[in-house]
Amino acid sequence: MYKCSLERMTDKIKTFSKFGATGNGGITRYSLSKEAIMARNEFKRRMEAIGAIIEVDDLANMYATLPGSDPNAKRIVMGSHVDSVKNGGNYDGILGVISAMEVLETIAEQKIPHKHPITAMIWTNEEGSLYPPAMMCSGIVCYDYLPDDIKEKFKEEDMMKSKSIIDGKTTFGEALEKSGFKGDRKYRLSPEKYLCMFETHIEQGPILEEAGNDIGVVDCVLGMFNYRLKFYGQAAHAGTFPMKKRKDAFYAASQALCYLHEEIDKLGYPDLVYTTGEVVCHPSVHTVIPDYFDFSFDARHEDPKVLEEVLAIVKSCANKAWAGCTCKVEKMWNRDTVYWDEKLVSYVKEAAEECGVSHQYIHSGAGHDAQFVAYMLPTTMIFVQSKNGLSHCEEEYSSPEQCTSGATVMLNAVLKADAE
Amino acid sequence: MYKCSLERMTDKIKTFSKFGATGNGGITRYSLSKEAIMARNEFKRRMEAIGAIIEVDDLANMYATLPGSDPNAKRIVMGSHVDSVKNGGNYDGILGVISAMEVLETIAEQKIPHKHPITAMIWTNEEGSLYPPAMMCSGIVCYDYLPDDIKEKFKEEDMMKSKSIIDGKTTFGEALEKSGFKGDRKYRLSPEKYLCMFETHIEQGPILEEAGNDIGVVDCVLGMFNYRLKFYGQAAHAGTFPMKKRKDAFYAASQALCYLHEEIDKLGYPDLVYTTGEVVCHPSVHTVIPDYFDFSFDARHEDPKVLEEVLAIVKSCANKAWAGCTCKVEKMWNRDTVYWDEKLVSYVKEAAEECGVSHQYIHSGAGHDAQFVAYMLPTTMIFVQSKNGLSHCEEEYSSPEQCTSGATVMLNAVLKADAE
Repeated sequence: MYKCSLERMTDKIKTFSKFGATGNGGITRYSLSKEAIMARNEFKRRMEAIGAIIEVDDLANMYATLPGSDPNAKRIVMGSHVDSVKNGGNYDGILGVISAMEVLETIAEQKIPHKHPITAMIWTNEEGSLYPPAMMCSGIVCYDYLPDDIKEKFKEEDMMKSKSIIDGKTTFGEALEKSGFKGDRKYRLSPEKYLCMFETHIEQGPILEEAGNDIGVVDCVLGMFNYRLKFYGQAAHAGTFPMKKRKDAFYAASQALCYLHEEIDKLGYPDLVYTTGEVVCHPSVHTVIPDYFDFSFDARHEDPKVLEEVLAIVKSCANKAWAGCTCKVEKMWNRDTVYWDEKLVSYVKEAAEECGVSHQYIHSGAGHDAQFVAYMLPTTMIFVQSKNGLSHCEEEYSSPEQCTSGATVMLNAVLKADAE
Repeated sequence: MYKCSLERMTDKIKTFSKFGATGNGGITRYSLSKEAIMARNEFKRRMEAIGAIIEVDDLANMYATLPGSDPNAKRIVMGSHVDSVKNGGNYDGILGVISAMEVLETIAEQKIPHKHPITAMIWTNEEGSLYPPAMMCSGIVCYDYLPDDIKEKFKEEDMMKSKSIIDGKTTFGEALEKSGFKGDRKYRLSPEKYLCMFETHIEQGPILEEAGNDIGVVDCVLGMFNYRLKFYGQAAHAGTFPMKKRKDAFYAASQALCYLHEEIDKLGYPDLVYTTGEVVCHPSVHTVIPDYFDFSFDARHEDPKVLEEVLAIVKSCANKAWAGCTCKVEKMWNRDTVYWDEKLVSYVKEAAEECGVSHQYIHSGAGHDAQFVAYMLPTTMIFVQSKNGLSHCEEEYSSPEQCTSGATVMLNAVLKADAE
């Protein structure tokens, strides 16, 4: 049983929190931005300092590898991302990178023997906050292994043309060229060169905190679907158009949202989550009745039958009259539940037990690069407790002790995989 | 009884519809934009052709005047605006300018005798679509005569600093300098030089069409209030945060909106209109529970007691729990009902009767430059039927015959004021 360093982890958390700091406790660090490049350079500097070999593939994914005793053995990789959402926190993504660095630093410092090369990795553009979609580069790298309906969303050619949501012009491909981090395709993660993958991540929910456990042994990523509900009304002047003749798309959407909550809550599934986070209102002028409104609908649950029941309710919105408006329900995407590799899950569980870290099994509600890798390599994840369950916001927090426990569990699980 | 020319009106409607045409039947013609300047130049060209004297004040308000027989008589002014909302129609505002031009053209062509000088006028920036607020320049010109609570919204100094909603940088003052239409303050509309004002405008509602009347004899502009309802929740990740702990600001706002409709509709006032047209959702990302949502609330009715009842319901939202979120209700502005000058209203009514134009009394639900002028000069308005009651959208339509009837009624009403 080996232990990671609380002091070194604390220093890394503090240092990386500076790259893109908003001044309000969080960060905005879009992929390939100058802030993200500062984080990449810090990663490179620290990994070179322990003698790791740095490789960068053609998608700017970065790999820092400590060689093992067997020159023919495949690599064990640990990784996550350094990019964030707008006004995000100091842990989502970056904690998985810091933890992977910490594992390599501990191995180097304590000269821990290992057969396989061990790699710490940065995935490019996991959030997709500037260049959608999320998990873009794991989608491209794992493309050949993905199910067909996911595949079609991650065609490399299309991804390169993804436009900046800020200027509506710059493409991801251009940002990649400009970043100075476009390397060689031959370095991409592949089953020929890599044995398995671990990703440490904050929970982003309140389950571990409520149960009083520091670490989650993740067994799956929940299945989900993402739809769009669109409401079509009629624009007219706020002061002159009688109420009884109005077709107000915002009011229609509000009625439908209340109906959705009412009907879905009747199903009574406590583990189900659903979210209507993205909103468009047109023309959004105080003197005009809105003629168009849409919102996203994202639902997640392990059991596909539960998701089917929810989807039936969502689809039923299209058949109803909402404040005189028509409604269209459009599918954006869905995914089935992805189960992690059983053997790797058991290594994480054993490592947590042996290290005396409080833990429990948990599902992942969020999507992560690891879930695309799971179609290609044996893969698993480790969760670290999130304070108040908050994430994708500046209040995101996990204590340095919990973060260090996460790294310690990953280190020992990696060594179990190495000894296999 | 004199008649305006259908042919000349049709030509003007067609010509002005080109300046800022969107290609979908409507226009986008922001104040002081190159499209608006094309409209101003056309106004100048046509008014100079009939011998009118052109004056431009320091706010770019334009005045074209035909002298009368009495050199000491005050002017009678007719006017409206040439600017539009985004994707607006070919009638809102511009019809009042075209009708004023048509009245002068008819007077010139038919050599109709009149004592007072008669002026056709363009008000700058009525919509406030690019540089808020609406009715900016009538607010500045009539400033000294406005009630205190309206006054404070129209300080000239503040107005000049109003920033473009497109680039967030250019100020109205800068746009004014750059336009080439900044004239002399001495030309501003004033009670020393002007006797009274008429404004012809489309109804922007379905009342005249339903009653089968071409023209509305407007008796007042409805009192109104504009509030903002703000909902504060907690951002968290869509996939990981249990439903029962969520504070979803969009859901909160939707519940409140349904509640508002339910409670206000119970009051049972058929003439009341209220609108929630402007919406802000933060962060508006499909994987994040919204932590902030707000919407505008605009209510209009002739009777201040009715507005008070509605306002009490709006304010009650702040005391309720909406999906775990808090709610703030903030006043933006309000105005009392403005009644038009009784004598001018009777001239319009008599003119419509004498010209055999179908007509009725009507309230104005929308705000117009005339309502600020009403604090300074005797003022009234004439409405022209709107097809399907639509306005502030590209479908806006009034037939050339109806538009010509409006001009004819205004011409004869102006001549009655002239003969007073």
